[in-house]
Amino acid sequence: MTTCWVPGADGSPYGVQTLPYGAFRHSGGAGSPGEPGGSSRAGGQRLGVRIADFVLDLRGAEDADLILAGGALCQPTLDEFLALGRAQWTTVRRRIVELLTESEHRAAVEPLLVPLAQVDLVMPFTVGDYVDFYSSEQHASNVGQIFRPGQPLLTPNWRHLPIGYHGRAGTVVVSGTPIVRPCGQRRSSAGPVFGPSGRLDIEAEVGFVVGVPTRLGDRVPTGRFADHVFGVTLVNDWSARDIQAWEYQPLGPFLGKSFATSVSPWIVPLEALDHAWVPAPEQDPPVLDYLVESARLGLDLSIVVEWNGTKVSAPPFAGMYWTPAQQLAHLTVNGAALRTGDLYASGTVSGARRDQVGSFLELTWGGTEPIKLDDGSERTFLEDGDTVVITATAPGPAGATIGLGEVTGTVLPAS
Amino acid sequence: MTTCWVPGADGSPYGVQTLPYGAFRHSGGAGSPGEPGGSSRAGGQRLGVRIADFVLDLRGAEDADLILAGGALCQPTLDEFLALGRAQWTTVRRRIVELLTESEHRAAVEPLLVPLAQVDLVMPFTVGDYVDFYSSEQHASNVGQIFRPGQPLLTPNWRHLPIGYHGRAGTVVVSGTPIVRPCGQRRSSAGPVFGPSGRLDIEAEVGFVVGVPTRLGDRVPTGRFADHVFGVTLVNDWSARDIQAWEYQPLGPFLGKSFATSVSPWIVPLEALDHAWVPAPEQDPPVLDYLVESARLGLDLSIVVEWNGTKVSAPPFAGMYWTPAQQLAHLTVNGAALRTGDLYASGTVSGARRDQVGSFLELTWGGTEPIKLDDGSERTFLEDGDTVVITATAPGPAGATIGLGEVTGTVLPAS
Repeated sequence: MTTCWVPGADGSPYGVQTLPYGAFRHSGGAGSPGEPGGSSRAGGQRLGVRIADFVLDLRGAEDADLILAGGALCQPTLDEFLALGRAQWTTVRRRIVELLTESEHRAAVEPLLVPLAQVDLVMPFTVGDYVDFYSSEQHASNVGQIFRPGQPLLTPNWRHLPIGYHGRAGTVVVSGTPIVRPCGQRRSSAGPVFGPSGRLDIEAEVGFVVGVPTRLGDRVPTGRFADHVFGVTLVNDWSARDIQAWEYQPLGPFLGKSFATSVSPWIVPLEALDHAWVPAPEQDPPVLDYLVESARLGLDLSIVVEWNGTKVSAPPFAGMYWTPAQQLAHLTVNGAALRTGDLYASGTVSGARRDQVGSFLELTWGGTEPIKLDDGSERTFLEDGDTVVITATAPGPAGATIGLGEVTGTVLPAS
Repeated sequence: MTTCWVPGADGSPYGVQTLPYGAFRHSGGAGSPGEPGGSSRAGGQRLGVRIADFVLDLRGAEDADLILAGGALCQPTLDEFLALGRAQWTTVRRRIVELLTESEHRAAVEPLLVPLAQVDLVMPFTVGDYVDFYSSEQHASNVGQIFRPGQPLLTPNWRHLPIGYHGRAGTVVVSGTPIVRPCGQRRSSAGPVFGPSGRLDIEAEVGFVVGVPTRLGDRVPTGRFADHVFGVTLVNDWSARDIQAWEYQPLGPFLGKSFATSVSPWIVPLEALDHAWVPAPEQDPPVLDYLVESARLGLDLSIVVEWNGTKVSAPPFAGMYWTPAQQLAHLTVNGAALRTGDLYASGTVSGARRDQVGSFLELTWGGTEPIKLDDGSERTFLEDGDTVVITATAPGPAGATIGLGEVTGTVLPAS
């Protein structure tokens, strides 16, 4: 393992093996690093890379010619950097590793480190289109059983294509944004009624951030995944199950999902996950040619879901039936163009065991089997004031751990 | 009727009663108007307003202080102007009417008129989220009968809420963009097969462009529609019926729609449609409070669909079951934020008669009843090389007609 001169980095899940990208503002009135006395830029949004419990100010680093990225790192969002492509992403990452490991750079770089406690993390990129897949066989089977009892667990198409739909890009929010309980229509024995959702839920997912766009008409074969996808972020696709159940036929989820989708402030670049690829489950029946991969690989991410501080589930991402490369190939096979900033998420990650599911719908089996939290309280769906934290880790090089940040949200009462 | 000094304007559907906004580039090598000899701006994208068969160059007009809009009209897209809000939209529109009707302005303004034949019209705004509704009772009933024979025509929720879903904003294209036939999976007796869609279709729709955004958690009551919506555009939501039929359960349409959605280059401001509001159909059962309108009003737009030059249908927009104000109230009732540039479309507009339907699926009853075009050829779905043109008009003041532009597209073979 390369030794990093930043205090606390070696052995941390946010050592130089990880280096996720984000955007931040200085909290409170402190001046910008490298700009003693503050400046008109203080309070402005800047790009950063996380190292241990610090953020490396990338604007400061590019301004000081410590990194050369054509000005892309001086922007308020990652958008311009995301468009640069794999060669540039790799070059910049290597340079950041040099800056953080070679002692000759310490004097220049150390003033650009801002303690995490002194920043507010903000949405790091402009979401183009947001697509949500449905790629966990366990999750789809569980939902089928709960929502459509007596019918086959999976729809006939499920093993032939990665089912997906478009969500609302404009309500993708950064971790920490409060989640106001949505209102809407739900079914009752007396006909539909309006009011706050009584079945507010989470969906623990993994999101993929597109960097390099395509033109209308182009396809991205499974083997070109890494040419287009920059990195990975955690996603909580908040869901109002009662609103969703009433509205979703025949055109799919709409208001039951569109009120908010939270993402981690950190985008972990694919390079950090080189050691996390593992064989994906075999597919039966065989898939059509455009979904075939030379090697079927999934990411071995270990997700943890905490509900008011109680660890309630540990969904295993490696077992997903459809891989990220298959999802991208499917998404574009009809010629749909990709834009920089497009986000596609895996769908709820659920394993075979009850303590491995990625939604409370499944955890409490449609609300029929409450679970007990560590404080003694019982829950079926989310109550006002509840907080959910989703974290994940992945295997890194030489036994190191890759941290994938966290996506957290607290439920506020309906307005 | 106010008299306009622009040749051909009086009596035209694009007289001063209409004045739709768009964006254009000078085609060929001509210099910019008002910039004799051309300049580095030639070929750049500018905003314009259509008057008769000319485009009034709005950048030129604001640069010359003929219109004051804080620079919003000097931008390459309408985005900044859309965000200004109703008071500013009305002020600018009144000023444009003055410029085009008062002879004292003719000398200054005439050099800013560019013949339509000398411009390329381009996408005039950045689409935020694209939502597609399903608000024609006739269309929903027809599709239910064709796709789900033997089941009730409408799903149980249909009369209680305007069904909608999110489409792909990144593939909304301006009228005239060629439509490459999409490939994808479709059902066959031997299991799913991959290939070019064999049932490529249109959906004739009316789109609403959001100007003024909302914050996460806000709602837009039915009475505030005109505070947020800037104007109207025609939409062709191209649809691959075979891809859609196989993929759409349980999460709705995805690749069957996401390859392209065409819009008119002209956004007709709501002010132009003041005379086009008519009572909307009564709703039974009564709707929940948040969907109630003080007066139920729909837009009396007469749509015409031409297939290779043959007029095949005339869908009447006034009969839509759910109004644009109800659609917006529903879209935001869960607190989903609006962004400037959000586009929501009505869903396919179909009337009661076969020659009033807005899709070829309905026109040929699922492809079972071919129709004959004027050249003697027969059609069920679109063939390569086919061209579809959708136009619409609305009643204007004092017997005048409002033109809503056109949305056109030609089908290219699958790549």
